Amino acid sequence: MGNGKEEEKQECLHRVAIPPPKPFLESLAATVKETFFPDDPFHQFKGQPTRRRFLLGLQYFVPFVEWAPRYTFDSFKADLVSGITIASLAIPQGISYAKLANLPPVVGLYSSFVPPLVYAMLGSSRDLAVGTVAVPSLLIASILGKDVSPTQNTKEYVNLVLTATFFAGVLQAALGFLRLGFIVDFLSHATIVGFMGGAATVVCLQQLKGLLGLRHFTNNTDLVSVVISIASQVHSWKWESALLGCCFLFFLLLTRYFSKRKRVFFWVNAMAPLTSVILATLLVSLTHAENHGVQVIGRLSKGLNPLSVDDLAFRSPFLATAIKTGMITGIIALAEGVAVGRSFAIFKNYHIDGNKEMIAFGLMNIVGSCTSCYLTSGPFSRSAVNFNAGCKSAVSNIVMAVGIMITLLLLTPLFYHTPLVVLSSIIITAMLGLIDYQAAIHLWQIDKFDFLVCLASYVGVVFGSVETGLILAVALSLLRVFISIARPRTFELGNIPNSMIYRSVDQYPNAERVPAILILQIDSPIYFANSNYLRERISRWIYEEEDRIKATGESSLQYVILDLSPVGSIDTSGISILEEINRNIERKGLKLVLANPRSEVIKKLEKSKFIESIGQDWIYLTVGEAVSACNFALHCSWPNVNSVECDAGPDNNV
Amino acid sequence: MGNGKEEEKQECLHRVAIPPPKPFLESLAATVKETFFPDDPFHQFKGQPTRRRFLLGLQYFVPFVEWAPRYTFDSFKADLVSGITIASLAIPQGISYAKLANLPPVVGLYSSFVPPLVYAMLGSSRDLAVGTVAVPSLLIASILGKDVSPTQNTKEYVNLVLTATFFAGVLQAALGFLRLGFIVDFLSHATIVGFMGGAATVVCLQQLKGLLGLRHFTNNTDLVSVVISIASQVHSWKWESALLGCCFLFFLLLTRYFSKRKRVFFWVNAMAPLTSVILATLLVSLTHAENHGVQVIGRLSKGLNPLSVDDLAFRSPFLATAIKTGMITGIIALAEGVAVGRSFAIFKNYHIDGNKEMIAFGLMNIVGSCTSCYLTSGPFSRSAVNFNAGCKSAVSNIVMAVGIMITLLLLTPLFYHTPLVVLSSIIITAMLGLIDYQAAIHLWQIDKFDFLVCLASYVGVVFGSVETGLILAVALSLLRVFISIARPRTFELGNIPNSMIYRSVDQYPNAERVPAILILQIDSPIYFANSNYLRERISRWIYEEEDRIKATGESSLQYVILDLSPVGSIDTSGISILEEINRNIERKGLKLVLANPRSEVIKKLEKSKFIESIGQDWIYLTVGEAVSACNFALHCSWPNVNSVECDAGPDNNV
Repeated sequence: MGNGKEEEKQECLHRVAIPPPKPFLESLAATVKETFFPDDPFHQFKGQPTRRRFLLGLQYFVPFVEWAPRYTFDSFKADLVSGITIASLAIPQGISYAKLANLPPVVGLYSSFVPPLVYAMLGSSRDLAVGTVAVPSLLIASILGKDVSPTQNTKEYVNLVLTATFFAGVLQAALGFLRLGFIVDFLSHATIVGFMGGAATVVCLQQLKGLLGLRHFTNNTDLVSVVISIASQVHSWKWESALLGCCFLFFLLLTRYFSKRKRVFFWVNAMAPLTSVILATLLVSLTHAENHGVQVIGRLSKGLNPLSVDDLAFRSPFLATAIKTGMITGIIALAEGVAVGRSFAIFKNYHIDGNKEMIAFGLMNIVGSCTSCYLTSGPFSRSAVNFNAGCKSAVSNIVMAVGIMITLLLLTPLFYHTPLVVLSSIIITAMLGLIDYQAAIHLWQIDKFDFLVCLASYVGVVFGSVETGLILAVALSLLRVFISIARPRTFELGNIPNSMIYRSVDQYPNAERVPAILILQIDSPIYFANSNYLRERISRWIYEEEDRIKATGESSLQYVILDLSPVGSIDTSGISILEEINRNIERKGLKLVLANPRSEVIKKLEKSKFIESIGQDWIYLTVGEAVSACNFALHCSWPNVNSVECDAGPDNNV
Repeated sequence: MGNGKEEEKQECLHRVAIPPPKPFLESLAATVKETFFPDDPFHQFKGQPTRRRFLLGLQYFVPFVEWAPRYTFDSFKADLVSGITIASLAIPQGISYAKLANLPPVVGLYSSFVPPLVYAMLGSSRDLAVGTVAVPSLLIASILGKDVSPTQNTKEYVNLVLTATFFAGVLQAALGFLRLGFIVDFLSHATIVGFMGGAATVVCLQQLKGLLGLRHFTNNTDLVSVVISIASQVHSWKWESALLGCCFLFFLLLTRYFSKRKRVFFWVNAMAPLTSVILATLLVSLTHAENHGVQVIGRLSKGLNPLSVDDLAFRSPFLATAIKTGMITGIIALAEGVAVGRSFAIFKNYHIDGNKEMIAFGLMNIVGSCTSCYLTSGPFSRSAVNFNAGCKSAVSNIVMAVGIMITLLLLTPLFYHTPLVVLSSIIITAMLGLIDYQAAIHLWQIDKFDFLVCLASYVGVVFGSVETGLILAVALSLLRVFISIARPRTFELGNIPNSMIYRSVDQYPNAERVPAILILQIDSPIYFANSNYLRERISRWIYEEEDRIKATGESSLQYVILDLSPVGSIDTSGISILEEINRNIERKGLKLVLANPRSEVIKKLEKSKFIESIGQDWIYLTVGEAVSACNFALHCSWPNVNSVECDAGPDNNV
C-alpha cells in the first residue's frame, strides 16, 4: 500500500532526468569542438569523396578558387568602376597615413599595392577594400617613436616598423589558425566606440602640426602636451599653411555633407581627396608656396615595392618594442577589419568566417612586411566607398592595386609639390567621421556601465596614451564580467495570479508570495568565484523573510525552494556550498527543495551524493510542482494521503 | 472588431512585465550594496537610538565586548583545558615553523604570545587557535631567502620578515575594510587542495635536511633540486639523527592513527608533540648526542617579545621583495584562516563575517610585526585540537598566550638540548595530514576540470615553485570561467509529453520537437565576450535544423523561439547581436519569438527599440505560450480568428 501511494504521487509529477553518463573523452571532444569550432567549418566536407574534399579544402583556404570560375563580365565592369574609385582614394590616404606613422610617404603607396592582391586571393569578403588604417598608424608612431627617432634614424625606424608588421601578421594568422578569434571579442562595442573616438581626436590634434606648418612638435599624443606644444610656438605659426588647410578642410567637409544627404553625390565625396591633392599640388607649383612656409611632400622614389626580407630587424635591440607594437596594432587592425567585413557581409547577406579572415589578414601582412609594406587592414572609409561604388567581388582590390602600380611606375614625380597641409585636411575629415558621439549617447541611454567603459576609453586615449585608454577600457569591461560572476543575482519568485507560473516579484509586482514557502532563483552557474557569496546571500534571504513573517504574523517558514533553471553548471566548490546551505537550512528546521536542476548540475549532484542527502523526492521539474508538493506535505499528514486529491494535474506546471 | 480579437488573444496570455524605470543613482547604490555588503552588516543598526548604535558598533568591531559580559565560569573551565592543550602544541610547532622560515626558534614562541591576545579581542571565531602556519613560513624562506641569506645576514633577514608581516597585515586589514574579501574566493577549493598537498610535500622534502642531519642544503624547494642535493651528500648522512627522527615520526604517526580511530584518544595526539620534545630533550641531554651528529636548538633568549617597530626595514633595498612576500603570504594565510574559522562556525552553527575576520587578522599581524612576531593565522591543526579539547570561546587563545608567556619567562633554557630532528618529525606528521589524496579522487569523480586545476597546482608547487603552482592554478580556474563566458551553452528545447513544459532534448530524451518551430535556450548573460559566438551558434542551429527537416521531410521551419529565462543581463554589444540575429532570421523568411525576457533584459530591449522591431506581440512569458501563439498563427489564418478557440488556458503554461 505504501508503494501505491508513492506511485500515485509520482504519476502526477514529472521526474528530473539524469542524463546518461558520457565517456570522458567524448565529452572533452564535444567541449573542444564547441570552444574552437562553434561554426562547424568542416560541415560541408562530411560524406564527400576524397577528390571533392581536396577541392573543397582548397576553396576553403583560397576562396578565390571558389568564386573565380563563376566570375562574370558584368561583375568585372562593376568592380572596375569601384576599383578605380578606391584607387583615387588610396593614393592620398596612403600618403597621409604613412605620414601619420612617421614613415616615408611612398611606403603608404607600397602598402596599397601588394596586400590587396594577397587579400583578393585569400579573403572571403566581397566588399572590403584593403589599405592602411589610421589608428594603428598613429600607434606605430607613438610606441616605436619612443625608442627610435623616425627623423634621425629613418632606416632603422622603417625596419622596425616592417618587423612590427611582420609580427602583427604572425599574430593574426596564428589567432586564425588556432581558432582563437574570440580574443577580438573582448574589445566590446563600447570600448571600440570610445577608443576610435579618442584615437580620432588624438589624430586630429596631431594634424595641427601640419595645418599650422610647425617644424617641431611634441612626441606625446595627449591633449595637454599637444596644447602646450602649440601654444609655446605661436610665433612659428604659418598663416599661409593654415589658410590653405582650412580651405581644403571646408571643401572636403562640404562634399561629405552633400554625399550624406543624397547618395548620388557619393562620387563627389569619393573623388574629393584626389581632387584636393591635384588642386593643391597645382596651386603650390604655380605659386611656389613651398618657399613661403607651406611644406611639400618632395621627391617620391619611382618604382615598385623593393623586397624587404633582409630589412626585418630580428636582431635589433628594440625587437621587444617591435613585437609589442606588432601585437597591439595587429589586434586593433584585426578588430577593425573583421568588424568592417562582417558589417557589409550582413548587409549583403553572405557569410564570413572570422578565423579565415584572420588568416587572410595575417598572410597579407607577413607578405606585406617582406615587400616594404606596413600594417594594412580593411579601413571602414575605403570599404564604404567600395561598397557604394557597387563592387561585386575582391577584384576591385586587384583593380586598385593595378592603379597604384601605375602610379608607382609613372606618376610619383607629380606629387613633388603636394603640400602636407592638404594631407592633414584629408586625415582630419576622415577622423571626424570616427567620433561617433551619437553612439555614445545611445550607450548612456541603454547601459550606463557601457557608457562608462566608452568614456574611460576616450578619456584614457585623449589625456593619457592610446595604450592607457585601451587597457583601461578592457580592464573595466573585464571587471564588470568579474563582478557579474562574483555577485550573481538572486530573486524571490512569486506566483502569477491565475496560473502556475512563478516569476520574480521585482519584475512582476502582481506575483504573490506563497505562504510558508520561500522561492529563490539563482541567476548564474555556481562556482568557486561566487559560492561563498551565494551562501551568505541565501542565508540573508531566509532571515529577511523570517523577519517579514514575524512582522506580518503569517504562518512560519517551512520550505525553501531553490529554482536552479538558470544554473547552467556547478563545480566542486559550488557543490560543497550547496551542502553547506542544506545543512544551514536543516538546522533552522526548514527543508530545502530543488526545482529544475539542469543536466550538468543534476549529474554532479548525483555523483557527489547530494541528491541522497536531500532526498530524491525533493527535486522537481518545475517550481510549480515543487510548490504543489510542499503544500501537499504541509496540509495533509502523510497517513491520510489516500483521501487527498493530488492537485497538480499533468499539464498545469511551471 | 480588430480590437476585440486582440483583447481575446491577450486575455489568455500573460504579458511580460517591463519593470518601472529606477533612477540611475538608486540602482547604482543597490548594485554597490550587493557587491560590497551582500551580508548586510548594518542590518541590526536599523531603527536603533544613537547610544545603542554606538554600543552595537563597538560590539561589531570588537566582538570581545559583545561576548565578555555573558562569559561564564563553566566556559572558562573548558577554555582553560583547551588553552593548555594548544599551548603544549604551540611550543614545538612555533619553534618548528620558525625553523622552516629560517628564523631564530624563539621568534616562533613570540608569535604565539601577542597575536592570540589581539585575536581574542577582535576575532569572531570561538574555535580558531592563532599561531604560525606552515605554508607561509616556507614561502617566506623561499622568497626572501633568495635576496638575503638568513645565515649570513640574520638581523637583516629577520627585519625583512617582520616588514613582510607588516605588509601582510596591512593588506589583510585593507581587504577587510574595503570589503574585498571575495578576492580570497578566487582560490577555489580545487586550487587549495592541490596547493596544500604540494606545499606539504615540499615541506616534508625540506625536513629531510634535519632528519639526515645535513648542514648544507639547496635553497630551491622543487623535488629535483632537493633529490640532487640529498643524493650528492650521501657521505654526510648521520644515522644517529635519522634513527632518532624515524622513531619519533613513528610515535607521532601512531598516536595520530589511534586518535583518528577513537576520539577519546585525541588527548594522546594533542600531547604527543610536547611529549616527543621532552623525551628527545631528555635523551639528548643524557646521551650527549649533540656531539654525535645530532643538531640541537641551542640557547633560546629568555624574556618576552622585544618591541620591533624600529626594525621594520622600510628603507631596505629589498623592500619590494618584502612587500611581495607580504602580499602572497598574507593572502594565503588569510585564505587558510578564514576557511578554518568558517568550517568550525558552520559546525557549531554560528556566523562569521569574513570581512571582519580579515580586519582581525590584519591588525593581529600589524601589532605582531611591531612586537617581533612573524606572520600568524589560524592553522588547521591547532584549531582542530582546540575544538576537540572543547573550547568555548577565544579565551582559550588567551590561556595559550599565558602558557607561552610563562615558557618565555622561565622555561626557555630547558629547550637547549632539544634535537632539531624531533622538530622535523613534528612538521612531517603535521604535513602528511595536509596531503588530502581522497579529496583529489573526489574531484576526479565529480569534476574533471577541477581535478586538472588541483593537479596543476600540486605539480607546479612540487616541480616548480610555490608561486608557480599558485599562479598556474588560479590561471586555469580563470580560464575556465572565461571559456564558460565566451562559449555559453545553447540548448534545443522540446515538449515533455502530456504537459506544457519545455526542456532540453539532451537532458530529456523523451521531449518532443514541435513541428515548424525551433526552440532554443541561451544559457548565460549576453554580452560582448560571447555575442559573436551566440550569433554564429544560433545560425548553425537554424541550418542544422533545416538540414534535418529536409532529410525527414517534415513541415518547413517557420518560427525560432529564443527562451531567455537563463539570460540575466545584456549589454549593448548583446543588443546589437540580437538585432543582427533578428535580421538574419527575417531574411530567411522566419520569425523570431522571445520567451521570458527578464527584467534587466526587457528594460534594455525596450530602450533600444528592439521590442518595436520584433513586435510586442511576439514576446511571451513562457515557452508554452510562445509555442501556442505560433501554432495558432500557423494553423488559423488571421481573418478567421473568431472561429478558433484559444487553446492556451490560464494555467497550463510553462
